[in-house]
Amino acid sequence: MPRATLITNIGELVTNDEQAGREGGPLGIIRDAAVLFDDGLVTWVGPAADAPAQTAGVELLDAGGRAVIPGFVDSHTHLVFGGDRAEEFAARMAGDRYEAGGIRSTVAATRAATDDELRARLAGFVAELHAQGTTTFEIKSGYGLSVADEERLVRLAREVTQEVTFLGAHVVPFEFREDPRFDGDQAAAGDAYVDVVIGEMLAACAPHSRWVDAFCERGAFTAEQSRRVLEAGAAAGLGVRVHGNQLGEGEGVHLAVELGAASVDHCTFLSDADVSALASSDTVATLLPGVEFSTRQPYPDARRLIDAGVTVALASDCNPGSSFTSSMPFCIAVAVRDMGMTPAEALWASTAGGALALRRDDVGSIRPGLRADLVELDAPSHLHLAYRPGVPLVRRVWAAGAPVVGRPAAT
Amino acid sequence: MPRATLITNIGELVTNDEQAGREGGPLGIIRDAAVLFDDGLVTWVGPAADAPAQTAGVELLDAGGRAVIPGFVDSHTHLVFGGDRAEEFAARMAGDRYEAGGIRSTVAATRAATDDELRARLAGFVAELHAQGTTTFEIKSGYGLSVADEERLVRLAREVTQEVTFLGAHVVPFEFREDPRFDGDQAAAGDAYVDVVIGEMLAACAPHSRWVDAFCERGAFTAEQSRRVLEAGAAAGLGVRVHGNQLGEGEGVHLAVELGAASVDHCTFLSDADVSALASSDTVATLLPGVEFSTRQPYPDARRLIDAGVTVALASDCNPGSSFTSSMPFCIAVAVRDMGMTPAEALWASTAGGALALRRDDVGSIRPGLRADLVELDAPSHLHLAYRPGVPLVRRVWAAGAPVVGRPAAT
Repeated sequence: MPRATLITNIGELVTNDEQAGREGGPLGIIRDAAVLFDDGLVTWVGPAADAPAQTAGVELLDAGGRAVIPGFVDSHTHLVFGGDRAEEFAARMAGDRYEAGGIRSTVAATRAATDDELRARLAGFVAELHAQGTTTFEIKSGYGLSVADEERLVRLAREVTQEVTFLGAHVVPFEFREDPRFDGDQAAAGDAYVDVVIGEMLAACAPHSRWVDAFCERGAFTAEQSRRVLEAGAAAGLGVRVHGNQLGEGEGVHLAVELGAASVDHCTFLSDADVSALASSDTVATLLPGVEFSTRQPYPDARRLIDAGVTVALASDCNPGSSFTSSMPFCIAVAVRDMGMTPAEALWASTAGGALALRRDDVGSIRPGLRADLVELDAPSHLHLAYRPGVPLVRRVWAAGAPVVGRPAAT
Repeated sequence: MPRATLITNIGELVTNDEQAGREGGPLGIIRDAAVLFDDGLVTWVGPAADAPAQTAGVELLDAGGRAVIPGFVDSHTHLVFGGDRAEEFAARMAGDRYEAGGIRSTVAATRAATDDELRARLAGFVAELHAQGTTTFEIKSGYGLSVADEERLVRLAREVTQEVTFLGAHVVPFEFREDPRFDGDQAAAGDAYVDVVIGEMLAACAPHSRWVDAFCERGAFTAEQSRRVLEAGAAAGLGVRVHGNQLGEGEGVHLAVELGAASVDHCTFLSDADVSALASSDTVATLLPGVEFSTRQPYPDARRLIDAGVTVALASDCNPGSSFTSSMPFCIAVAVRDMGMTPAEALWASTAGGALALRRDDVGSIRPGLRADLVELDAPSHLHLAYRPGVPLVRRVWAAGAPVVGRPAAT
């Protein structure tokens, strides 16, 4: 168990607790702050001058006037897969169009990989997430698309995170699409695959999963197919999340709100009715700037959503096809430049917003009783996350009070 | 002196030497490669199977199949300054417009800083550059704008790099603009300041500098004022570089070509005549994607330049006002997404292109006789620099054969 630690001389502490800090609105910023944590949990937060008297067992750390923020909560990734699609990316940048069908090549590579190969890859990604300040992350299946392979992916994901999402309904696999039984009828192929998803596949995957998800989009699953998957998942005790409205307006948002989904992800193309429905629901709109960056699609309009009262989260969607970034700071920089978010809104959406999207009340903020997930930046302010795009500003990271990243100061 | 080192098991070696590697056009890629260096210089490059027999004094390093590329050459930065402008950045993102006049606040903070404060800041930036794979970098003055302060900035810059540029002609300083002698006549104020720049200031700065530069733009210096500065610098033995065509079409490119400048930087707004003039000259067009990212200006059209036969370099323009990124990988990712460059063109422009922009023939490529500036990526291919935006992929860095960055593998 990590020892009790007092971090002091924090130039700017972002708590995401409006009661604790009077600056920065929802960021609840405290200047010249200190944080005490013990046994993995935050036990005290406040101005350094008021910090509890130092006792013998407490490790004292000096933040040198730097900023400390909550660990990022990345509520949308697809990190269990084999191979990569660097060549496809280069071809797309040279003019090819992104289509969901490209997922197929990753499915083939993932099926061909051994458990240990996938585990080693996953361990690398976890280190990469930590190095960039992400302390809570969700992982979806969806590159197996057979009962045995989907079970394998959620099982492996569960070894590194409790936020596992069963996404058997990612795309209709090759073997169904080209099955002569359906004679090219893609709707019939999809229906038959959904039968498997909600039957044997769900039964195999639910024990390892917390969430069910479906890709409700042209080229993937219809609203009716998605509804069957999500309702079956909910009946099996899983929380609901939806991929929707990525490539065009569609029924994803409507379905998500109707089913009380924790989050609907992408939200790039929204009607006014979609925005209103989200605003009067508890469903979080999770925006994924890495996707639009990496596919040259138009960016979602975060400003419109926030102004309408929708709760917005940012996530990386880290996956080898449409967004191979795992960097929440990068997502923040793009959201500020191209999606109309302020730096404060983008940081909140990447921490507290992500926690809401995962229905977690123990992470995403720095306050007594919550998990001690903290990131010290090589910068005096959270503004630098957008102000210094691409620069690795994460200096030290604690996950549940344990140091997982520490590098010498650059200055 | 660093010891002789053989790096082997390099999955993809980017040499920038078309004779050495047959793949990737100008990148001269060798698969399954090895590199030997000694005494700070590369001594052998080729397929690992052909590597020289190992001898006792040689350190053997295994790249584990990863990619190795030349160290980045960042030919345009402004890294000696005090303060930052995070609040101005946040205001601009909320709708304020970028104008060159914002430089004034950095001038005040820089003048107020002690030498040791600027030195400490600079040391931090050098560590940051190394950590991101940059092994050669230029630094401009231009936040002093008085004889004593400009001399101080080039002198401090010279402590960390030989590529020092005297940019007294960055903007006309406050004390000239508001001097009652000129009664608000900005042209007269500029002329009087230029008299100082080409007189006492140049005399004080030239001994510490390799280059002279002028910001030829509305709001900064006219073409005639810029010409006076550049010609005086050239007469004092300095090479010529120009800031031009950033905020609108103007005479910067024309002037740069006429004076045989090594590089003209920004090149965001170009006439067809500008493009033709560049194509038939030795002047490099240095594009600075961080500026357009951070000011929401339209991006320069690299495709148009490359297709016309212009030599293009990429640089960070790292400065606290218009582009506070120091990340060449970030610049590459943006150049590929938004400026029409291929990943290969963007990498070449960030290494060999930067070397040409600095008229250096000892860096920017990996070949026998050149400086051993090498970057090992946590990736199998250089494509990942654009494919994985924002992700810190730099694993190990050698500058003139000495290890300056080494972190444990993520996988």
